[in-house]
Order: sequence, then structure tokens, then C-alpha cells
Amino acid sequence: MATLPHPNDVDLLNLDLAADRQSGSFLLGSGLVRHDGALYGGTGLAVSVAAMEAATGRDALWASTQFVSQPAMGATIAWTVETLALGKRAAQLSVRATCDGAVAFAALGSTGIAVTDGLTGIYARMPRVSDPDGAPLRVQAMPDVSFPDSWTLLIEMREAEVLDPDGPAVAMWARFRDGRPFTPAAIGFVADFVPLGVARAAGKMGAGASLDNSMRFRGGAADAAWVLLELRGDFAQGGFGHGTVRVWEPGGTLLAAGSQSASMRYLFEEGGVSTMPGPPPSSS
Amino acid sequence: MATLPHPNDVDLLNLDLAADRQSGSFLLGSGLVRHDGALYGGTGLAVSVAAMEAATGRDALWASTQFVSQPAMGATIAWTVETLALGKRAAQLSVRATCDGAVAFAALGSTGIAVTDGLTGIYARMPRVSDPDGAPLRVQAMPDVSFPDSWTLLIEMREAEVLDPDGPAVAMWARFRDGRPFTPAAIGFVADFVPLGVARAAGKMGAGASLDNSMRFRGGAADAAWVLLELRGDFAQGGFGHGTVRVWEPGGTLLAAGSQSASMRYLFEEGGVSTMPGPPPSSS
Repeated sequence: MATLPHPNDVDLLNLDLAADRQSGSFLLGSGLVRHDGALYGGTGLAVSVAAMEAATGRDALWASTQFVSQPAMGATIAWTVETLALGKRAAQLSVRATCDGAVAFAALGSTGIAVTDGLTGIYARMPRVSDPDGAPLRVQAMPDVSFPDSWTLLIEMREAEVLDPDGPAVAMWARFRDGRPFTPAAIGFVADFVPLGVARAAGKMGAGASLDNSMRFRGGAADAAWVLLELRGDFAQGGFGHGTVRVWEPGGTLLAAGSQSASMRYLFEEGGVSTMPGPPPSSS
Repeated sequence: MATLPHPNDVDLLNLDLAADRQSGSFLLGSGLVRHDGALYGGTGLAVSVAAMEAATGRDALWASTQFVSQPAMGATIAWTVETLALGKRAAQLSVRATCDGAVAFAALGSTGIAVTDGLTGIYARMPRVSDPDGAPLRVQAMPDVSFPDSWTLLIEMREAEVLDPDGPAVAMWARFRDGRPFTPAAIGFVADFVPLGVARAAGKMGAGASLDNSMRFRGGAADAAWVLLELRGDFAQGGFGHGTVRVWEPGGTLLAAGSQSASMRYLFEEGGVSTMPGPPPSSS
């Protein structure tokens, strides 16, 4: 049985757990922010997942994290887990994270104990895509100037060529530069790109400001070097977009399935001028 | 601009709103419970959505409702909305519903104001299925004895024949028996059947006990007589299953996209004995 939270997650997210494991705090450090220096959505979901696993000693089943404010790099963010129900197998949890007394993000989710003979299977098919080794680095949809302390410090992404005619709008290979395993929190960390899938489904470049990041997990740590993010748009209405992500091991194991809603603010045409938020003002 | 909450939702759900519209209560009456007489998941999501729309006067964008306890028919459930952030366009909200002081369900979600020239489009394709008029009533996956006060009092469901080879595990036509329009809350109410999609994807009959019901909405009221529920399984692990639902107007407009996780407790083989929970003990 795995130690929870996974030591890798404690390290990735700078987690400082309280003795009773129901609360804690983390430094919003280098690698955990966006290109504009504010809290990266994947960090919010990853911390929510690790917090739930820590509080219950059970594997994450699903979590939905809502982004409320945008703490900047260097901030300390504290969280508390509330156990709403603790069943024999499933626990129902709520997480509230604050920065200087203001809510930074809020999450709901469940952790659970798998049953050996319980229903197990994969009911979706991995799309056929080009290998990570032949895939170009993901640069097209990035802002012109990157913030060197953003999540790109930790994650490498390469855009795969989609070989199925009914394949996703975009597919990305993702890996940690240090080769760390894909725990549920780590998967949540790398998979925060649904708005990009919505933009591409609409024939645009760019992305959006996520309202939430919601994901359902197989549980446990996967040792894959790369995972594939299968990104699809569902629909958009009046500037709000909605879509899904599936996270695959190269062998075809489905590790997680997620969805997000976003305000689709940062759209531009291919080859046009990026409207993505740039790096923060220098603090010299 | 529509009145929010939609008067139809107030009527469907017996909503009693406080004067400041930030809280309220509802009677868990006839039609709002499952076959075992406990809170129906679709009711929890629908009340969460209507509560968020009432508190902000804005259309629902998404909501994730987590089921904590199982109040029985006849209970009065009170809710409070907490506005975590109120932006120019999007509001970030948390809902807590209690029954006799204990949490019944909790929700996170957003409402928003659409921008006239904002991104709008549908990026998924409705599956080809048989018409509702030719479709058999949905009876196969139901318990042997129905509770007459369950949601079947309000909703008629017919299983469609899926005509696409890569179509969903199961597709259901659903309508309100009284022909009421499909507001986001009403869509949430009829679409609480993802565990059935997971079971069918696994080649089983039956369903599961939902941990949550999460859905993303186009917003506004649709006047379709029937909507199609496209139900797909993603994966299951150790007895916990995860899947998706898309809700379509017959003309191909995607009204909502949702997902759920569930404990897949109630599985049986086709033609086998139902393990679904039955009606509550008679209260005579």
C-alpha cells in the first residue's frame, strides 16, 4: 500500500503538512505558477488532490477545484480539509485554500479504498498519434516571452500529430523534466490545458482563464515517462468554453479523465499576435 | 433576459427562496427521490444550479454537486450560497445544503454573463440514434418494483438504438411528462445516469451510487420536447466507475456536458436478478 500523500507530491508541491494531516500550507514557488507569475491551475488541482489523500490515507477518486483568486509567486497558501462523510470505502471531502486570509481556491472530491474484485476496465480508446520522440515541442500556443519560473520549468510538452480522422482537437505528450512518476496529483498538475483544446476545436490559437479544473483518477502512481493529453472541445457559448481531457499511458491505460470551463479571453489566429498574458513586471 | 431562477425550476423543485436570494429551502417531495425513497442525485444538482442562478441573477456555467447524506422523502432541506468571487462576467460560488443540521450535499460552480460576440460553437457531434417515438421505454435497468413517488413520476425515459459503430454505450431519450422546458437545472435533473452508462460500457446491467454529479451548461431554457442523453463509460478501477454524459437537443445542439464518479455496487447480468435498491419500507 502506498504512503499517502505520495512523497513525490510533497516534494513537487512544497507541501508542509500539519501533524493531524487535515491541513497544511505550501510555498507558491518556482515552477508552480503561470507565465504571468500567478498560481497555475494545475498546482491548485494537484494540491487539492494531495490534501484529500493526506487527510484520509485513501487514493483520490475525483476532485473539482475552483479558482477564486490569483496569488503571485512567493506567496504562502494554507489549506484545510473538511471530511463531510467517511464511509467504509468512499470519503467525501471539501478543501479550502487561503492566502493572506482570502480564498485562493476551493475543491470538492472523494477518496476511496479499491475493492480487489470490484469493477475494473477501460471503456474508451486511446487516439492514434505520433510518438513523443518525433513530436515538435509545444511552442505555438505559448506567449511570445515566457516567464522562466513558470510550470515549463518542470514540464516538457510536445504536440503529437493526431492520426485518427475523428481524433481530438489537439494531443500533447507531457513529461516531468526530472522523470517523476504520475501520481493523481502529478497528473492533475500536467493536465490543466482543456481551454487550449477548446480554442483549437474552434480553429483558434490561444487559451482561456480556467474557472475550474475537475478530474477523475484511476489512482496510484504510474511510472510512464510520457503521458498523452487528449484534449477535446465540447462547446462554447458567449465567450465561455467547455471541454475535456483524457490522460493516457503510452500503452493505452487511461489514467484520468477531466473537464474544465473557461472564459475564452486569449484567442488569436494562427500566425497572429498572441493575446496570452505575459510575464509579471520585473521586481528589481 | 430571463428571470432567474427560472420560474419552472422554482416549481419543479419546490424552492422557497429567502428575500436576499442567497439561501432557501425545499421540501423533498414526490418525484424528487430515487426508487428507495432517498434524495435523487438529479435533484441535488438541480437545486445547486438554481441556487447559484438565484444568488447571482446569472446563467449557470457549470456545477459539481457532491452527495454527502441521503435525506428521505418528506424532509426539508435548506441551502446557503457563498459568493467566493463576483467578477464582471463570471461568479465563483459554493453551495452547502443541510437537513436537520447535517450536510446533505455540497456544490461548487460558476454563473456568468455571456458576451454577444464571445466564442460560440459546438465541437462535438451528436450520435446517430433511433427516434424517441420508436424507442422502447427504459425498463431493463430498473428495479423490479418501482417506488411510485420516485423521479419516474416526472420524467419519461426511452432507450434509443445507437446507429453509429463508435457510438455511446447507451443513449436515452428523456422528457418531462408535463412538457416543461430544459433549463440548466432541469437538464441536471434528467441527466443523472452516468453510472448506468459505465455499467453498460462494461457489458453489465445496473448502476452505481453516485459520489457526485458535475455538469457544464450552454445556459438558458431550451424548448425541446425530448433531449438525448449520450452516456459513455471512461474507466473503472476497484469498484469505482467514471463516465460522461452529453445532453443534446434533437436538432444537434449540445445543451450540456457532464461527468460522474460512482461506487458501482448494483451490477447484474442481462436477464439476471436486479441488485438495485428497492422501494422504502411502507410507512403505514
